[in-house]
Amino acid sequence: MYSLTPVLIAVVCVLIVWIFKNADRGVERRKGEARAGSEARPWVDADLKDSTDLQQVEEDADEWQESEESVEHIPFSHTRYPEEEMVMRSQEFYELLNKRRSVRFISNEQVPMEVIENVIKTAGTAPSGAHTEPWTFVVVKDPDMKHQIREIIEEEEKINYLKRMGQRWVTDLKKLRTNWIKEYLDTAPVLILIFKQVHGFTANGKKKVHYYNEISVSIACGILLAALQAQKKGPSVCLHL
Amino acid sequence: MYSLTPVLIAVVCVLIVWIFKNADRGVERRKGEARAGSEARPWVDADLKDSTDLQQVEEDADEWQESEESVEHIPFSHTRYPEEEMVMRSQEFYELLNKRRSVRFISNEQVPMEVIENVIKTAGTAPSGAHTEPWTFVVVKDPDMKHQIREIIEEEEKINYLKRMGQRWVTDLKKLRTNWIKEYLDTAPVLILIFKQVHGFTANGKKKVHYYNEISVSIACGILLAALQAQKKGPSVCLHL
Repeated sequence: MYSLTPVLIAVVCVLIVWIFKNADRGVERRKGEARAGSEARPWVDADLKDSTDLQQVEEDADEWQESEESVEHIPFSHTRYPEEEMVMRSQEFYELLNKRRSVRFISNEQVPMEVIENVIKTAGTAPSGAHTEPWTFVVVKDPDMKHQIREIIEEEEKINYLKRMGQRWVTDLKKLRTNWIKEYLDTAPVLILIFKQVHGFTANGKKKVHYYNEISVSIACGILLAALQAQKKGPSVCLHL
Repeated sequence: MYSLTPVLIAVVCVLIVWIFKNADRGVERRKGEARAGSEARPWVDADLKDSTDLQQVEEDADEWQESEESVEHIPFSHTRYPEEEMVMRSQEFYELLNKRRSVRFISNEQVPMEVIENVIKTAGTAPSGAHTEPWTFVVVKDPDMKHQIREIIEEEEKINYLKRMGQRWVTDLKKLRTNWIKEYLDTAPVLILIFKQVHGFTANGKKKVHYYNEISVSIACGILLAALQAQKKGPSVCLHL
């Protein structure tokens, strides 16, 4: 029999792309331009294959001036631990994080909302492209809403298993004994949905490009996982990619 | 005058794509197949726009059997803090992480290698697609090597600023007062280069697909940042995207 883990939170990464986006406008044209003009190195251009909404850039460029003001560098003050303590603390933090597991059986025990709020605030300290903070965290506790989310995710996962991802993927996952059924999305008392913002809006309603939005949101997820783990003695967290 | 921060480490995300990759083989063919077969939802398919090497899948599928063995679920045991302590710890962790800054002026003071090793081990506890752990961390201390890395990065960044990323990007970054000059890559005593592995190899030399490799590596970067911050009182870290 499998033990029900004490974990209280399922982290669901829902990656929403192309919202409010004018589908193909200008894409093909810009592709050609980029290749001609940049001596493109594949490993650098790939950084922007995360739906960064670059083709929008040129269209609004004349209208949008928000970022023109200059910001002073801020002197940074600090204190530091002695070397032995740095080593000890880094070792302890490793041991704590090394106890995290991606679990499939999740407890239904409640967790204080203050803890949820603190871990989300912590995730929001992550660095992001041009400090655009391209993330939205949504906390869901309502059972009906959780169930609807489960149904959407299971429908997508079923397509993944049956046709989208191919036979190799199904084979690779086989030993992990996963499938598209996600009962734990009903069981967990709290779901944290994480959305990436492909772009934002400025105060005057203009589009604001969110550079490296996928990488930035994923880094925030890593910090969120660390925060969840850091305030526990040993429990673990399920990250649903 | 700007204060030199005490930070000892510059984290350099170098995203390497398509290494060992047969450039276009099969890409066009599979594109057509995927669209026909999957009723694709853009927000899900976008998850795999991170260079996941899917077109290789079909070619080796018959030869590669490593993942066939079944692995038992492992019961998970734990201990947990009382609610008040969970709240307090989550608050403290938020306050600690909230002190992290992306700095541009970095101290040249040495840092114990044990600390570097521990934070990298901690990053390696991150979840990853099908547990493929698609990351390589490279620690560089040699001054000549650091300088060569700086030259490569500055060359790429100069292309970003002058032509690749467009005028909007340059405008957006202007207030941050950054440019393509990265003196701190010479100054920092240690660079941690982070590479994503688009695929790996099995024991018998077959290719092993690394699903969601960009998201997975970025999550590991988030945990690495948390680990760097967790063993300090207040210093910060520069993440070079």
